[in-house]
Amino acid sequence: MQQILLIGAGKSTAVLIKYLSEKSSEENFQIIVADKDLSLAKKAVKNHQNCQAVSFDIFDAESCETHITPAAIVISMLPARLHIEIAKSCLKLKKNLVTASYISNEMKALDAEVKKAGLVFMNEIGVDPGIDHMSAMQVIDRIRDEGGKILMFESFCGGLLSPESDNNLWNYKFTWNPRNVVVAGQGGVAKFIQEGNYKYIPYHRLFRRTEFLDIEDYGRFEAYANRNSLDYREAYGLQDILTLYRGTMRRVGYSRAWNMFVQLGMTDDSFTMEDSENMTYREFVNSFLPYSPTDSVELKLRHNLRIDQDDIMWEKLLELDLFNNIKKIGIKKATPAQALQKILEEKWSLSSEDKDMIVMYHKFGYELNGEKKQIDATMVCLGKNQTETAMAKTVGLPVGIATLKILKNKINTPGVHLPISREVYQPILQELQENGIIFKEKQTIYLGYNAIGGVSN
Amino acid sequence: MQQILLIGAGKSTAVLIKYLSEKSSEENFQIIVADKDLSLAKKAVKNHQNCQAVSFDIFDAESCETHITPAAIVISMLPARLHIEIAKSCLKLKKNLVTASYISNEMKALDAEVKKAGLVFMNEIGVDPGIDHMSAMQVIDRIRDEGGKILMFESFCGGLLSPESDNNLWNYKFTWNPRNVVVAGQGGVAKFIQEGNYKYIPYHRLFRRTEFLDIEDYGRFEAYANRNSLDYREAYGLQDILTLYRGTMRRVGYSRAWNMFVQLGMTDDSFTMEDSENMTYREFVNSFLPYSPTDSVELKLRHNLRIDQDDIMWEKLLELDLFNNIKKIGIKKATPAQALQKILEEKWSLSSEDKDMIVMYHKFGYELNGEKKQIDATMVCLGKNQTETAMAKTVGLPVGIATLKILKNKINTPGVHLPISREVYQPILQELQENGIIFKEKQTIYLGYNAIGGVSN
Repeated sequence: MQQILLIGAGKSTAVLIKYLSEKSSEENFQIIVADKDLSLAKKAVKNHQNCQAVSFDIFDAESCETHITPAAIVISMLPARLHIEIAKSCLKLKKNLVTASYISNEMKALDAEVKKAGLVFMNEIGVDPGIDHMSAMQVIDRIRDEGGKILMFESFCGGLLSPESDNNLWNYKFTWNPRNVVVAGQGGVAKFIQEGNYKYIPYHRLFRRTEFLDIEDYGRFEAYANRNSLDYREAYGLQDILTLYRGTMRRVGYSRAWNMFVQLGMTDDSFTMEDSENMTYREFVNSFLPYSPTDSVELKLRHNLRIDQDDIMWEKLLELDLFNNIKKIGIKKATPAQALQKILEEKWSLSSEDKDMIVMYHKFGYELNGEKKQIDATMVCLGKNQTETAMAKTVGLPVGIATLKILKNKINTPGVHLPISREVYQPILQELQENGIIFKEKQTIYLGYNAIGGVSN
Repeated sequence: MQQILLIGAGKSTAVLIKYLSEKSSEENFQIIVADKDLSLAKKAVKNHQNCQAVSFDIFDAESCETHITPAAIVISMLPARLHIEIAKSCLKLKKNLVTASYISNEMKALDAEVKKAGLVFMNEIGVDPGIDHMSAMQVIDRIRDEGGKILMFESFCGGLLSPESDNNLWNYKFTWNPRNVVVAGQGGVAKFIQEGNYKYIPYHRLFRRTEFLDIEDYGRFEAYANRNSLDYREAYGLQDILTLYRGTMRRVGYSRAWNMFVQLGMTDDSFTMEDSENMTYREFVNSFLPYSPTDSVELKLRHNLRIDQDDIMWEKLLELDLFNNIKKIGIKKATPAQALQKILEEKWSLSSEDKDMIVMYHKFGYELNGEKKQIDATMVCLGKNQTETAMAKTVGLPVGIATLKILKNKINTPGVHLPISREVYQPILQELQENGIIFKEKQTIYLGYNAIGGVSN
């Protein structure tokens, strides 16, 4: 019996383990779920067949070798920065590897050796990155096969609330790592290209330069730009494209409201605040506003951010209990971002009934036989419950499918990869579709930025 | 004859060399002006008596030793990061040292050794830092001597244009390192304390949270907060102070206009722009604005920044020729900050007739015998010409005076210092006053933040 070693038994592995387990008898393999915390591994294994939990410390070379040696393939679901250790062991012990994380420079540097060893190290095979790559490349390749020239590619993804659980003013709760949400957009200018013009958006304007997106049956969304939209320009073969933009989707109004925190400085993660442990929510807010012996924190904030009396922005702040003068941050040496996260977690944590939703939206503009056309491709995945979340499904399924395809030698081109070749995306997208992860396409005329008829008035 | 070794013959040394030279016969010493560029040293030496130019490379240990050994004291006017090399040589060769720069951590780390060797390493003895420390400590010590308790200290300084040269809409030209002006306020949150409350201002709000300051005969100024106003809280002995704020002075309206660049993202120094070399000024501006097939860059900018038709902000942008579609940035791999600097230097460089001005403003609030009082101390220094600038004078004189006081053993407490002890500031401020650098004081009642009568309405 072949062994699949899954390292890291976090929240996102539930669907992955279930998928693998269901295939294990028919395909004749065993799944070893390894985690530093054995109880976590055991919990993840549940009563799934052909699954076994083990304790595993990636910083213990012997433990690494002991568990990796009998495996036919390794899946690392550890935090991204830890993959490289696993990757080195896999290279040494000649094992294939699958991760759902961005290819780090260190990982990339292993490419030649991985090729030489005839191994497949498949990365970025979750939802974003992952399903976005595959679903985009499928359409891009199809347009090219027909002889079309891609003029525009815009791609958006968001982890949100299922409509039935969408019950707060922000239309948002934390369905994934809260910290990533609080510091989203930081650490580099947003860069993209529009009609051949490079565009840059500084962080403090990011949440005011959004665009709307409509998805049938799900209504309207908005998107703000990702850090560097040009990251995949070469990989996708879009060197000459005029417009390339990647963004993060939220429900309409979220970005305008989030911008209040950005403007005040509350999302800053670069310094620690004085006596943050004993600071009340109200004091936290007040520390970003000028001192006044007479004016209230509320009025100062309203004035500072020019919030009118009847602006829904204000209700959004009240919903978070932001001006509470009793509740404390309670974190020593907290950065503003950490303090804000604390406040948000109180209101934006999922309740046991809450269900999540993953939305994805691609726009392809192209020219074919002298005609300009556009394809809009959308995908919506709804969570079933708190275990089989949309996030766990859209990450776990492509990882699981890719793992089995590599195990069965259906995907076998050696190297450090992301899933952009036909060999990879065709069979995986096919099986995702069978599992309900389906892209709907709509064909329109491509109007580009002249969509409104564009006469220069 | 004793030797003073002056290392670094940059623009700011003209008044320093003149001062030292004038004292040299009477006090019986010689000045060696050392620079990597011998012609620069020669130019600085001019025909000043008892002055001699030499070529000097701080990265050549032998050259260092050769020139430092015969000196009685060393002045380093090199860029701040280079002082540490000189400091180490001075320690080894047992020489006193004077610099006008902030004490770096590395410099601070030498304190014990410097003390043990019985040497004086005097730093931060220019204008800001320098005259600000001395003039502030003189008033603080006087208030304390009288039995007063300091409640508030605010300190402001600015390098500006002399009123007669103040002839553009920004009321500003580069009288000092342009790069420092373009990136001013970056690299850390502005932090201060007001009535016991810690306050933080993120960079993108810094230029909108200004305060006004009036100086008799010179009119109104504004100030924005420095990075960390609390840096000298301990050194000044103000641990319990309720309000501590340090700021940079500009003419009123500068900050609101500068904020346009900040908002657009043009002051960002963290990334390089695509094809910056061939980018026109207009393209530079456009890269921070959304794409439109029909709207002009001008209208997009006006809309983006909400600039009304009759707003003087607009005239300020036009004065800089910001929308020129022929002039090119001409710098390879330029950051936005570098590109902006290029555009500004074209308009903000001093002409040969332009004169500069240094302004300083301290506010001290204190309680004495149950009464709350305030002292406002202001200093204005005007440049004479392009050589004897106010900047060169206010940096060069305190450096020169301190050097002679140390040389003559009038200042002799060993250690790595900034000029905050009476031994240092008393004789130096006295001599600065004789040279026309004079603080005017005004005594008022201290109303703190209740200056308008402050009833909570």
